[in-house]
Amino acid sequence: MRWARWSWGGRFHLGTVSPSGDEVTPRVAERHVSDMAAVIASLAGGGPVPEPTGARLPLSAVTLTAPLARPARNLFCIGRNYRAHAEELATTVFRDTVARADGWPIVFTKVPETVVGPHDPVRLPGAAASEQIDYEAELAVVIGRGGRDIPRSRALAHVFGYTVVNDVSARDVQVRHQQWHLGKSFDTFCPMGPWIVTADELDGTDTRVRCWVTSGGHTELRQDGRTRDLIFDIPTLVETCSRGITLQPGDVIATGTPSGVGMGFQPPRWLGRGDVVRIEIDGLGAIENRFE
Amino acid sequence: MRWARWSWGGRFHLGTVSPSGDEVTPRVAERHVSDMAAVIASLAGGGPVPEPTGARLPLSAVTLTAPLARPARNLFCIGRNYRAHAEELATTVFRDTVARADGWPIVFTKVPETVVGPHDPVRLPGAAASEQIDYEAELAVVIGRGGRDIPRSRALAHVFGYTVVNDVSARDVQVRHQQWHLGKSFDTFCPMGPWIVTADELDGTDTRVRCWVTSGGHTELRQDGRTRDLIFDIPTLVETCSRGITLQPGDVIATGTPSGVGMGFQPPRWLGRGDVVRIEIDGLGAIENRFE
Repeated sequence: MRWARWSWGGRFHLGTVSPSGDEVTPRVAERHVSDMAAVIASLAGGGPVPEPTGARLPLSAVTLTAPLARPARNLFCIGRNYRAHAEELATTVFRDTVARADGWPIVFTKVPETVVGPHDPVRLPGAAASEQIDYEAELAVVIGRGGRDIPRSRALAHVFGYTVVNDVSARDVQVRHQQWHLGKSFDTFCPMGPWIVTADELDGTDTRVRCWVTSGGHTELRQDGRTRDLIFDIPTLVETCSRGITLQPGDVIATGTPSGVGMGFQPPRWLGRGDVVRIEIDGLGAIENRFE
Repeated sequence: MRWARWSWGGRFHLGTVSPSGDEVTPRVAERHVSDMAAVIASLAGGGPVPEPTGARLPLSAVTLTAPLARPARNLFCIGRNYRAHAEELATTVFRDTVARADGWPIVFTKVPETVVGPHDPVRLPGAAASEQIDYEAELAVVIGRGGRDIPRSRALAHVFGYTVVNDVSARDVQVRHQQWHLGKSFDTFCPMGPWIVTADELDGTDTRVRCWVTSGGHTELRQDGRTRDLIFDIPTLVETCSRGITLQPGDVIATGTPSGVGMGFQPPRWLGRGDVVRIEIDGLGAIENRFE
Protein backbone atom coordinates (compact mmCIF):
# COMPACT_ATOMS: atom_id res chain seq x y z
CA MET A 1 0.00 0.00 0.00
CA ARG A 2 0.94 3.61 -0.29
CA TRP A 3 0.18 5.87 2.68
CA ALA A 4 -0.01 9.60 2.09
CA ARG A 5 -1.03 12.78 3.89
CA TRP A 6 -2.56 15.70 2.06
CA SER A 7 -4.47 18.92 2.44
CA TRP A 8 -7.80 19.45 0.70
CA GLY A 9 -10.69 21.72 1.45
CA GLY A 10 -8.72 23.55 4.12
CA ARG A 11 -8.07 20.40 6.16
CA PHE A 12 -5.45 17.71 6.42
CA HIS A 13 -6.19 14.07 5.62
CA LEU A 14 -4.29 10.81 6.07
CA GLY A 15 -4.99 7.73 3.97
CA THR A 16 -4.01 5.57 1.05
CA VAL A 17 -3.15 6.09 -2.60
CA SER A 18 -4.85 3.82 -5.16
CA PRO A 19 -2.73 1.22 -6.98
CA SER A 20 -3.03 3.30 -10.16
CA GLY A 21 -1.67 6.32 -8.28
CA ASP A 22 -4.61 8.43 -9.48
CA GLU A 23 -6.72 8.65 -6.34
CA VAL A 24 -6.44 9.12 -2.59
CA THR A 25 -8.79 7.74 0.09
CA PRO A 26 -8.88 9.23 3.61
CA ARG A 27 -8.76 6.55 6.32
CA VAL A 28 -8.03 8.36 9.57
CA ALA A 29 -10.31 10.54 11.72
CA GLU A 30 -9.55 14.23 11.49
CA ARG A 31 -8.10 14.56 14.98
CA HIS A 32 -5.45 11.94 14.18
CA VAL A 33 -4.37 13.08 10.71
CA SER A 34 -0.93 14.03 11.99
CA ASP A 35 -0.32 10.72 13.69
CA MET A 36 0.99 8.43 10.96
CA ALA A 37 3.13 6.76 13.64
CA ALA A 38 -0.03 5.46 15.35
CA VAL A 39 -1.28 4.04 12.04
CA ILE A 40 2.11 2.39 11.51
CA ALA A 41 2.10 0.93 15.04
CA SER A 42 -1.37 -0.54 14.48
CA LEU A 43 -0.62 -2.02 11.05
CA ALA A 44 2.78 -3.33 12.16
CA GLY A 45 1.03 -5.03 15.07
CA GLY A 46 -1.23 -6.90 12.67
CA GLY A 47 -4.16 -4.48 12.83
CA PRO A 48 -6.54 -4.13 9.87
CA VAL A 49 -6.29 -1.44 7.22
CA PRO A 50 -8.65 1.27 8.50
CA GLU A 51 -11.93 1.73 6.63
CA PRO A 52 -12.38 4.86 4.51
CA THR A 53 -13.50 7.92 6.46
CA GLY A 54 -14.45 9.96 3.41
CA ALA A 55 -14.79 9.96 -0.35
CA ARG A 56 -12.01 9.18 -2.81
CA LEU A 57 -10.48 12.16 -4.55
CA PRO A 58 -8.27 12.57 -7.59
CA LEU A 59 -4.63 12.90 -6.51
CA SER A 60 -4.42 15.90 -8.81
CA ALA A 61 -7.00 17.72 -6.67
CA VAL A 62 -5.05 17.55 -3.41
CA THR A 63 -1.75 18.93 -2.10
CA LEU A 64 0.53 16.28 -0.63
CA THR A 65 2.35 16.97 2.64
CA ALA A 66 5.11 14.77 4.04
CA PRO A 67 3.62 11.38 4.98
CA LEU A 68 5.21 11.73 8.44
CA ALA A 69 4.30 15.37 9.00
CA ARG A 70 6.42 15.60 12.12
CA PRO A 71 8.42 12.50 13.14
CA ALA A 72 8.30 11.93 16.91
CA ARG A 73 12.03 12.42 17.26
CA ASN A 74 15.04 13.35 15.18
CA LEU A 75 15.59 11.33 12.02
CA PHE A 76 18.49 8.87 12.09
CA CYS A 77 20.70 9.60 9.07
CA ILE A 78 23.59 7.59 7.65
CA GLY A 79 26.72 9.22 6.23
CA ARG A 80 29.15 7.93 3.60
CA ASN A 81 27.23 4.79 2.64
CA TYR A 82 27.81 4.32 -1.10
CA ARG A 83 31.31 3.39 -2.22
CA ALA A 84 31.45 5.89 -5.10
CA HIS A 85 30.28 8.64 -2.74
CA ALA A 86 32.93 7.59 -0.20
CA GLU A 87 35.51 8.04 -2.97
CA GLU A 88 34.21 11.48 -3.89
CA LEU A 89 34.31 12.52 -0.20
CA ALA A 90 38.06 12.00 -0.27
CA THR A 91 38.27 15.00 -2.62
CA THR A 92 36.17 17.35 -0.44
CA VAL A 93 36.19 19.36 2.76
CA PHE A 94 35.68 16.02 4.57
CA ARG A 95 38.93 14.50 3.30
CA ASP A 96 40.71 14.88 6.63
CA THR A 97 37.86 14.11 9.02
CA VAL A 98 35.82 11.21 7.63
CA ALA A 99 37.75 8.01 8.15
CA ARG A 100 38.10 5.97 4.96
CA ALA A 101 37.74 2.53 6.49
CA ASP A 102 34.31 0.88 6.39
CA GLY A 103 34.26 -0.43 9.96
CA TRP A 104 31.03 1.07 11.28
CA PRO A 105 28.23 3.22 9.87
CA ILE A 106 28.29 6.96 10.53
CA VAL A 107 25.01 7.97 12.21
CA PHE A 108 23.86 11.54 12.85
CA THR A 109 20.44 13.23 13.12
CA LYS A 110 18.18 15.94 11.74
CA VAL A 111 15.51 17.60 13.92
CA PRO A 112 11.92 16.49 13.11
CA GLU A 113 10.94 20.03 12.14
CA THR A 114 13.24 19.86 9.10
CA VAL A 115 10.57 17.75 7.39
CA VAL A 116 8.56 19.48 4.65
CA GLY A 117 6.35 18.15 1.87
CA PRO A 118 7.36 16.65 -1.48
CA HIS A 119 6.78 19.91 -3.37
CA ASP A 120 7.38 22.48 -0.61
CA PRO A 121 10.08 25.14 -0.90
CA VAL A 122 13.37 24.75 0.98
CA ARG A 123 14.49 27.93 2.72
CA LEU A 124 18.13 28.87 2.11
CA PRO A 125 19.39 29.98 5.54
CA GLY A 126 21.26 33.04 4.26
CA ALA A 127 24.94 33.63 3.64
CA ALA A 128 25.63 34.50 7.28
CA ALA A 129 24.62 30.96 8.26
CA SER A 130 25.93 28.98 5.28
CA GLU A 131 27.23 29.47 1.75
CA GLN A 132 27.54 25.77 0.93
CA ILE A 133 24.08 24.24 0.59
CA ASP A 134 24.01 20.78 -0.95
CA TYR A 135 21.51 18.02 -1.82
CA GLU A 136 21.57 14.32 -0.92
CA ALA A 137 19.07 11.96 -2.58
CA GLU A 138 18.21 9.13 -0.22
CA LEU A 139 15.94 6.17 0.32
CA ALA A 140 14.52 6.43 3.84
CA VAL A 141 13.44 3.40 5.86
CA VAL A 142 10.31 3.82 8.01
CA ILE A 143 10.31 1.54 11.05
CA GLY A 144 7.16 -0.51 11.73
CA ARG A 145 7.38 -2.78 14.75
CA GLY A 146 9.72 -1.26 17.31
CA GLY A 147 12.42 -3.04 19.24
CA ARG A 148 15.89 -2.99 20.71
CA ASP A 149 18.91 -5.08 19.74
CA ILE A 150 17.27 -6.21 16.50
CA PRO A 151 19.60 -8.65 14.70
CA ARG A 152 20.32 -8.27 10.97
CA SER A 153 18.53 -11.54 10.30
CA ARG A 154 15.21 -10.18 11.56
CA ALA A 155 15.66 -6.53 10.68
CA LEU A 156 13.49 -6.41 7.55
CA ALA A 157 10.52 -7.61 9.62
CA HIS A 158 10.76 -4.27 11.46
CA VAL A 159 10.59 -2.19 8.27
CA PHE A 160 7.13 -0.76 7.60
CA GLY A 161 8.03 0.84 4.31
CA TYR A 162 10.10 3.39 2.44
CA THR A 163 9.95 7.01 1.40
CA VAL A 164 12.13 9.53 -0.45
CA VAL A 165 14.07 12.24 1.38
CA ASN A 166 16.46 14.98 0.40
CA ASP A 167 19.02 15.16 3.23
CA VAL A 168 19.79 18.84 2.56
CA SER A 169 23.16 19.77 4.05
CA ALA A 170 25.13 22.91 4.86
CA ARG A 171 28.68 21.67 4.27
CA ASP A 172 30.49 24.58 5.92
CA VAL A 173 28.33 24.19 9.03
CA GLN A 174 28.95 20.44 9.17
CA VAL A 175 32.70 21.01 9.03
CA ARG A 176 33.02 23.88 11.47
CA HIS A 177 31.01 22.20 14.25
CA GLN A 178 32.70 18.78 13.66
CA GLN A 179 29.53 16.91 14.62
CA TRP A 180 27.07 17.21 11.73
CA HIS A 181 23.79 17.79 13.59
CA LEU A 182 23.47 21.57 13.09
CA GLY A 183 24.52 21.53 9.44
CA LYS A 184 21.77 19.01 8.71
CA SER A 185 18.99 20.61 10.77
CA PHE A 186 18.16 24.01 9.32
CA ASP A 187 14.41 24.59 9.04
CA THR A 188 12.92 22.88 5.91
CA PHE A 189 16.08 20.83 5.27
CA CYS A 190 14.28 17.49 4.85
CA PRO A 191 11.80 17.34 1.96
CA MET A 192 9.99 13.98 2.23
CA GLY A 193 7.45 12.08 0.19
CA PRO A 194 5.53 11.69 -1.96
CA TRP A 195 4.21 8.91 0.30
CA ILE A 196 5.31 5.79 2.18
CA VAL A 197 5.32 2.59 0.10
CA THR A 198 4.96 -0.47 2.33
CA ALA A 199 7.75 -3.03 2.29
CA ASP A 200 5.57 -5.70 0.65
CA GLU A 201 5.37 -3.53 -2.47
CA LEU A 202 8.97 -2.35 -2.80
CA ASP A 203 12.28 -4.13 -2.32
CA GLY A 204 14.17 -1.25 -0.75
CA THR A 205 17.37 -3.26 -0.78
CA ASP A 206 17.63 -2.94 -4.55
CA THR A 207 16.08 0.08 -6.18
CA ARG A 208 17.35 3.02 -8.21
CA VAL A 209 17.88 6.48 -6.66
CA ARG A 210 18.25 9.44 -8.99
CA CYS A 211 18.60 13.17 -8.48
CA TRP A 212 18.32 16.02 -10.99
CA VAL A 213 19.23 19.63 -10.36
CA THR A 214 17.70 22.44 -12.41
CA SER A 215 19.73 25.63 -12.27
CA GLY A 216 19.55 28.60 -14.61
CA GLY A 217 16.99 26.78 -16.76
CA HIS A 218 19.28 23.80 -17.33
CA THR A 219 18.40 20.36 -15.89
CA GLU A 220 21.13 17.84 -15.18
CA LEU A 221 21.13 14.31 -13.77
CA ARG A 222 23.54 14.53 -10.83
CA GLN A 223 23.05 11.31 -8.85
CA ASP A 224 22.19 7.83 -10.12
CA GLY A 225 22.72 4.96 -7.70
CA ARG A 226 21.19 1.66 -6.62
CA THR A 227 20.55 0.73 -3.00
CA ARG A 228 22.17 -2.69 -3.58
CA ASP A 229 25.45 -0.72 -3.60
CA LEU A 230 25.05 0.48 0.01
CA ILE A 231 28.24 -0.15 2.01
CA PHE A 232 26.06 -0.95 5.05
CA ASP A 233 22.81 -2.56 3.87
CA ILE A 234 19.39 -1.87 5.35
CA PRO A 235 19.39 -4.85 7.78
CA THR A 236 22.78 -3.70 9.10
CA LEU A 237 21.51 -0.15 9.57
CA VAL A 238 18.46 -1.35 11.56
CA GLU A 239 20.72 -3.56 13.67
CA THR A 240 23.11 -0.65 14.24
CA CYS A 241 20.51 1.96 15.17
CA SER A 242 18.70 -0.45 17.51
CA ARG A 243 21.79 -1.59 19.43
CA GLY A 244 20.96 -0.50 22.97
CA ILE A 245 18.39 1.98 21.60
CA THR A 246 14.70 1.05 21.36
CA LEU A 247 13.44 1.88 17.87
CA GLN A 248 9.85 3.14 17.68
CA PRO A 249 7.13 2.78 15.03
CA GLY A 250 7.52 5.71 12.64
CA ASP A 251 11.24 6.18 13.23
CA VAL A 252 13.05 7.18 10.04
CA ILE A 253 16.50 5.98 8.96
CA ALA A 254 17.81 7.84 5.89
CA THR A 255 20.18 5.35 4.29
CA GLY A 256 22.81 7.65 2.79
CA THR A 257 23.36 9.21 -0.62
CA PRO A 258 25.01 8.03 -3.87
CA SER A 259 27.88 9.91 -5.50
CA GLY A 260 27.23 13.13 -7.36
CA VAL A 261 26.58 15.63 -4.58
CA GLY A 262 27.48 19.26 -5.26
CA MET A 263 30.58 19.27 -3.06
CA GLY A 264 32.07 16.46 -5.17
CA PHE A 265 32.51 18.72 -8.20
CA GLN A 266 35.70 20.70 -8.88
CA PRO A 267 34.89 23.45 -8.05
CA PRO A 268 31.91 22.54 -5.85
CA ARG A 269 28.45 23.39 -7.18
CA TRP A 270 26.35 24.70 -4.31
CA LEU A 271 22.60 25.24 -4.54
CA GLY A 272 21.34 28.80 -5.01
CA ARG A 273 18.08 30.67 -5.00
CA GLY A 274 15.65 29.34 -7.61
CA ASP A 275 17.38 25.98 -8.08
CA VAL A 276 15.09 22.96 -8.13
CA VAL A 277 16.10 19.49 -6.92
CA ARG A 278 14.10 16.46 -8.07
CA ILE A 279 14.69 13.06 -6.49
CA GLU A 280 13.08 9.92 -7.89
CA ILE A 281 13.26 6.39 -6.53
CA ASP A 282 12.03 3.54 -8.73
CA GLY A 283 8.89 1.89 -7.35
CA LEU A 284 8.32 4.81 -4.99
CA GLY A 285 7.92 8.15 -6.76
CA ALA A 286 9.47 11.59 -6.85
CA ILE A 287 9.84 14.73 -4.78
CA GLU A 288 10.76 18.08 -6.29
CA ASN A 289 11.66 21.13 -4.24
CA ARG A 290 12.63 24.67 -5.07
CA PHE A 291 15.31 26.44 -3.00
CA GLU A 292 14.26 29.95 -2.01
CA MET B 1 10.10 28.67 40.88
CA ARG B 2 10.95 25.04 40.75
CA TRP B 3 8.87 22.83 38.44
CA ALA B 4 8.84 19.11 39.08
CA ARG B 5 7.02 15.98 37.94
CA TRP B 6 6.36 13.10 40.31
CA SER B 7 4.38 9.93 40.84
CA TRP B 8 2.17 9.52 43.87
CA GLY B 9 -0.84 7.35 44.51
CA GLY B 10 -0.34 5.47 41.26
CA ARG B 11 -0.54 8.60 39.12
CA PHE B 12 1.78 11.22 37.69
CA HIS B 13 1.60 14.87 38.72
CA LEU B 14 3.19 18.07 37.44
CA GLY B 15 3.60 21.15 39.60
CA THR B 16 5.85 23.25 41.77
CA VAL B 17 8.22 22.67 44.65
CA SER B 18 7.92 24.98 47.69
CA PRO B 19 10.72 27.50 48.36
CA SER B 20 11.81 25.39 51.34
CA GLY B 21 12.09 22.35 49.08
CA ASP B 22 9.91 20.34 51.47
CA GLU B 23 6.61 20.21 49.61
CA VAL B 24 5.17 19.76 46.13
CA THR B 25 1.94 21.24 44.78
CA PRO B 26 0.25 19.80 41.67
CA ARG B 27 -0.77 22.49 39.17
CA VAL B 28 -1.63 20.68 35.95
CA ALA B 29 -4.69 18.59 35.06
CA GLU B 30 -4.03 14.87 34.96
CA ARG B 31 -4.30 14.52 31.18
CA HIS B 32 -1.48 17.04 30.71
CA VAL B 33 1.00 15.83 33.34
CA SER B 34 3.48 14.76 30.66
CA ASP B 35 3.38 18.08 28.84
CA MET B 36 5.82 20.30 30.69
CA ALA B 37 6.61 21.92 27.32
CA ALA B 38 3.06 23.33 27.19
CA VAL B 39 3.47 24.78 30.69
CA ILE B 40 6.78 26.31 29.65
CA ALA B 41 5.25 27.79 26.48
CA SER B 42 2.44 29.36 28.52
CA LEU B 43 4.70 30.79 31.24
CA ALA B 44 7.28 31.99 28.72
CA GLY B 45 4.48 33.78 26.88
CA GLY B 46 3.59 35.68 30.04
CA GLY B 47 0.81 33.39 31.21
CA PRO B 48 -0.01 33.10 34.93
CA VAL B 49 1.31 30.38 37.20
CA PRO B 50 -1.47 27.77 37.13
CA GLU B 51 -3.60 27.40 40.26
CA PRO B 52 -3.14 24.26 42.39
CA THR B 53 -5.13 21.26 41.14
CA GLY B 54 -4.67 19.24 44.32
CA ALA B 55 -3.31 19.21 47.83
CA ARG B 56 0.29 19.91 48.82
CA LEU B 57 2.33 16.85 49.71
CA PRO B 58 5.66 16.34 51.46
CA LEU B 59 8.42 15.90 48.87
CA SER B 60 9.52 12.88 50.86
CA ALA B 61 6.20 11.15 50.10
CA VAL B 62 6.50 11.29 46.32
CA THR B 63 8.83 9.82 43.69
CA LEU B 64 10.31 12.40 41.34
CA THR B 65 10.47 11.66 37.61
CA ALA B 66 12.38 13.78 35.11
CA PRO B 67 10.73 17.23 34.90
CA LEU B 68 10.61 16.84 31.11
CA ALA B 69 9.44 13.24 31.03
CA ARG B 70 9.94 12.96 27.30
CA PRO B 71 11.37 15.99 25.47
CA ALA B 72 9.60 16.60 22.15
CA ARG B 73 12.78 16.00 20.17
CA ASN B 74 16.36 14.95 20.69
CA LEU B 75 18.33 16.93 23.27
CA PHE B 76 20.97 19.28 21.91
CA CYS B 77 24.27 18.47 23.64
CA ILE B 78 27.55 20.36 23.61
CA GLY B 79 30.92 18.62 23.50
CA ARG B 80 34.31 19.81 24.77
CA ASN B 81 33.12 23.00 26.45
CA TYR B 82 35.33 23.43 29.55
CA ARG B 83 38.99 24.24 28.98
CA ALA B 84 40.31 21.72 31.52
CA HIS B 85 38.12 19.02 29.95
CA ALA B 86 39.40 20.00 26.49
CA GLU B 87 42.91 19.45 27.81
CA GLU B 88 42.06 16.04 29.24
CA LEU B 89 40.47 15.03 25.91
CA ALA B 90 43.86 15.43 24.29
CA THR B 91 45.00 12.40 26.32
CA THR B 92 42.06 10.14 25.35
CA VAL B 93 40.60 8.15 22.48
CA PHE B 94 39.46 11.50 21.04
CA ARG B 95 42.97 12.92 20.74
CA ASP B 96 43.07 12.48 16.95
CA THR B 97 39.49 13.38 16.07
CA VAL B 98 38.40 16.34 18.19
CA ALA B 99 39.99 19.49 16.89
CA ARG B 100 41.78 21.49 19.56
CA ALA B 101 40.86 24.94 18.30
CA ASP B 102 37.92 26.70 19.94
CA GLY B 103 36.36 28.05 16.76
CA TRP B 104 32.82 26.66 17.00
CA PRO B 105 30.85 24.60 19.53
CA ILE B 106 30.50 20.86 18.93
CA VAL B 107 26.78 19.97 18.90
CA PHE B 108 25.34 16.44 18.86
CA THR B 109 22.11 14.88 20.14
CA LYS B 110 20.61 12.23 22.42
CA VAL B 111 17.20 10.68 21.65
CA PRO B 112 14.39 11.89 23.98
CA GLU B 113 13.82 8.38 25.31
CA THR B 114 17.23 8.45 27.01
CA VAL B 115 15.68 10.64 29.72
CA VAL B 116 15.04 8.96 33.08
CA GLY B 117 14.34 10.34 36.55
CA PRO B 118 16.79 11.79 39.07
CA HIS B 119 16.99 8.53 41.03
CA ASP B 120 16.22 5.96 38.34
CA PRO B 121 18.67 3.22 37.41
CA VAL B 122 20.79 3.49 34.27
CA ARG B 123 20.92 0.31 32.24
CA LEU B 124 24.41 -0.76 31.16
CA PRO B 125 23.98 -1.89 27.55
CA GLY B 126 26.12 -5.01 27.88
CA ALA B 127 29.67 -5.75 26.82
CA ALA B 128 28.65 -6.61 23.25
CA ALA B 129 27.43 -3.03 22.79
CA SER B 130 29.99 -1.11 24.86
CA GLU B 131 32.70 -1.67 27.44
CA GLN B 132 33.47 2.02 28.01
CA ILE B 133 30.56 3.65 29.84
CA ASP B 134 31.31 7.10 31.22
CA TYR B 135 29.54 9.95 33.09
CA GLU B 136 29.32 13.64 32.23
CA ALA B 137 27.90 16.07 34.82
CA GLU B 138 26.17 18.96 33.05
CA LEU B 139 24.00 21.99 33.56
CA ALA B 140 21.16 21.80 31.03
CA VAL B 141 19.40 24.88 29.69
CA VAL B 142 15.64 24.57 29.16
CA ILE B 143 14.36 26.88 26.42
CA GLY B 144 11.31 29.04 27.18
CA ARG B 145 10.23 31.32 24.37
CA GLY B 146 11.14 29.73 21.04
CA GLY B 147 12.77 31.45 18.11
CA ARG B 148 15.20 31.29 15.24
CA ASP B 149 18.40 33.27 14.75
CA ILE B 150 18.41 34.43 18.37
CA PRO B 151 21.38 36.78 18.92
CA ARG B 152 23.67 36.33 21.95
CA SER B 153 22.49 39.66 23.31
CA ARG B 154 18.90 38.44 23.66
CA ALA B 155 19.57 34.75 24.29
CA LEU B 156 19.01 34.70 28.07
CA ALA B 157 15.46 36.01 27.52
CA HIS B 158 14.76 32.68 25.79
CA VAL B 159 15.97 30.58 28.74
CA PHE B 160 13.11 29.26 30.90
CA GLY B 161 15.33 27.60 33.45
CA TYR B 162 17.93 24.98 34.24
CA THR B 163 18.13 21.36 35.27
CA VAL B 164 20.82 18.75 35.98
CA VAL B 165 21.66 15.99 33.49
CA ASN B 166 24.14 13.16 33.33
CA ASP B 167 25.16 12.92 29.66
CA VAL B 168 26.04 9.22 29.95
CA SER B 169 28.37 8.19 27.12
CA ALA B 170 29.67 4.98 25.54
CA ARG B 171 33.14 6.09 24.48
CA ASP B 172 33.94 3.13 22.23
CA VAL B 173 30.64 3.61 20.40
CA GLN B 174 31.25 7.34 19.97
CA VAL B 175 34.65 6.65 18.44
CA ARG B 176 33.75 3.79 16.12
CA HIS B 177 30.78 5.57 14.52
CA GLN B 178 32.68 8.92 14.28
CA GLN B 179 29.47 10.89 14.80
CA TRP B 180 28.52 10.66 18.49
CA HIS B 181 24.75 10.21 18.28
CA LEU B 182 24.57 6.44 18.89
CA GLY B 183 27.13 6.39 21.72
CA LYS B 184 25.07 9.01 23.55
CA SER B 185 21.62 7.53 22.96
CA PHE B 186 21.40 4.14 24.65
CA ASP B 187 18.15 3.68 26.58
CA THR B 188 18.27 5.41 30.03
CA PHE B 189 21.45 7.36 29.16
CA CYS B 190 20.14 10.74 30.33
CA PRO B 191 19.22 10.98 34.03
CA MET B 192 17.57 14.38 34.56
CA GLY B 193 16.29 16.35 37.52
CA PRO B 194 15.52 16.80 40.27
CA TRP B 195 13.43 19.65 38.79
CA ILE B 196 13.68 22.74 36.61
CA VAL B 197 14.72 25.92 38.45
CA THR B 198 13.51 29.01 36.60
CA ALA B 199 16.10 31.47 35.37
CA ASP B 200 14.97 34.21 37.78
CA GLU B 201 16.12 32.01 40.69
CA LEU B 202 19.44 30.72 39.39
CA ASP B 203 22.25 32.38 37.48
CA GLY B 204 23.14 29.44 35.25
CA THR B 205 26.08 31.35 33.83
CA ASP B 206 27.98 31.00 37.11
CA THR B 207 27.23 28.02 39.28
CA ARG B 208 29.16 25.02 40.54
CA VAL B 209 28.84 21.56 38.95
CA ARG B 210 30.11 18.57 40.91
CA CYS B 211 30.07 14.83 40.32
CA TRP B 212 30.83 11.97 42.73
CA VAL B 213 31.25 8.34 41.77
CA THR B 214 30.70 5.58 44.31
CA SER B 215 32.34 2.31 43.30
CA GLY B 216 33.12 -0.67 45.51
CA GLY B 217 31.84 1.22 48.55
CA HIS B 218 34.25 4.13 48.02
CA THR B 219 32.94 7.60 47.11
CA GLU B 220 35.16 10.02 45.22
CA LEU B 221 34.64 13.57 43.93
CA ARG B 222 35.50 13.29 40.24
CA GLN B 223 34.29 16.54 38.67
CA ASP B 224 34.19 20.04 40.15
CA GLY B 225 33.68 22.91 37.72
CA ARG B 226 31.94 26.26 37.39
CA THR B 227 29.79 27.25 34.44
CA ARG B 228 31.61 30.59 34.21
CA ASP B 229 34.48 28.52 32.79
CA LEU B 230 32.49 27.37 29.76
CA ILE B 231 34.46 27.90 26.54
CA PHE B 232 31.20 28.80 24.78
CA ASP B 233 28.85 30.50 27.24
CA ILE B 234 25.11 29.95 27.45
CA PRO B 235 24.14 32.93 25.25
CA THR B 236 26.55 31.69 22.57
CA LEU B 237 25.08 28.18 22.76
CA VAL B 238 21.52 29.49 22.32
CA GLU B 239 22.67 31.64 19.40
CA THR B 240 24.46 28.66 17.85
CA CYS B 241 21.64 26.14 18.19
CA SER B 242 19.06 28.63 16.87
CA ARG B 243 21.02 29.69 13.78
CA GLY B 244 18.65 28.64 10.98
CA ILE B 245 16.89 26.23 13.37
CA THR B 246 13.72 27.29 15.22
CA LEU B 247 14.11 26.49 18.92
CA GLN B 248 10.93 25.34 20.68
CA PRO B 249 9.69 25.77 24.27
CA GLY B 250 11.01 22.81 26.25
CA ASP B 251 14.07 22.22 24.08
CA VAL B 252 17.07 21.14 26.13
CA ILE B 253 20.67 22.22 25.57
CA ALA B 254 23.15 20.30 27.75
CA THR B 255 26.06 22.69 28.11
CA GLY B 256 29.02 20.29 28.30
CA THR B 257 30.97 18.70 31.13
CA PRO B 258 33.93 19.79 33.31
CA SER B 259 37.16 17.81 33.49
CA GLY B 260 37.30 14.59 35.48
CA VAL B 261 35.41 12.13 33.30
CA GLY B 262 36.38 8.47 33.53
CA MET B 263 38.18 8.39 30.19
CA GLY B 264 40.54 11.11 31.39
CA PHE B 265 42.23 8.82 33.93
CA GLN B 266 45.30 6.72 33.12
CA PRO B 267 44.13 4.00 32.77
CA PRO B 268 40.51 5.05 32.12
CA ARG B 269 37.97 4.31 34.85
CA TRP B 270 34.76 3.08 33.22
CA LEU B 271 31.50 2.66 35.10
CA GLY B 272 30.46 -0.85 36.12
CA ARG B 273 27.46 -2.61 37.57
CA GLY B 274 26.51 -1.22 40.97
CA ASP B 275 28.38 2.07 40.60
CA VAL B 276 26.45 5.16 41.65
CA VAL B 277 26.92 8.61 40.09
CA ARG B 278 25.76 11.70 41.98
CA ILE B 279 25.69 15.09 40.28
CA GLU B 280 24.97 18.27 42.20
CA ILE B 281 24.64 21.81 40.89
CA ASP B 282 24.62 24.66 43.38
CA GLY B 283 21.25 26.41 43.53
CA LEU B 284 19.59 23.57 41.71
CA GLY B 285 19.90 20.22 43.48
CA ALA B 286 21.22 16.72 42.90
CA ILE B 287 20.53 13.59 40.89
CA GLU B 288 21.92 10.21 41.88
CA ASN B 289 21.71 7.14 39.67
CA ARG B 290 22.84 3.57 40.01
CA PHE B 291 24.26 1.71 36.99
CA GLU B 292 22.74 -1.75 36.58
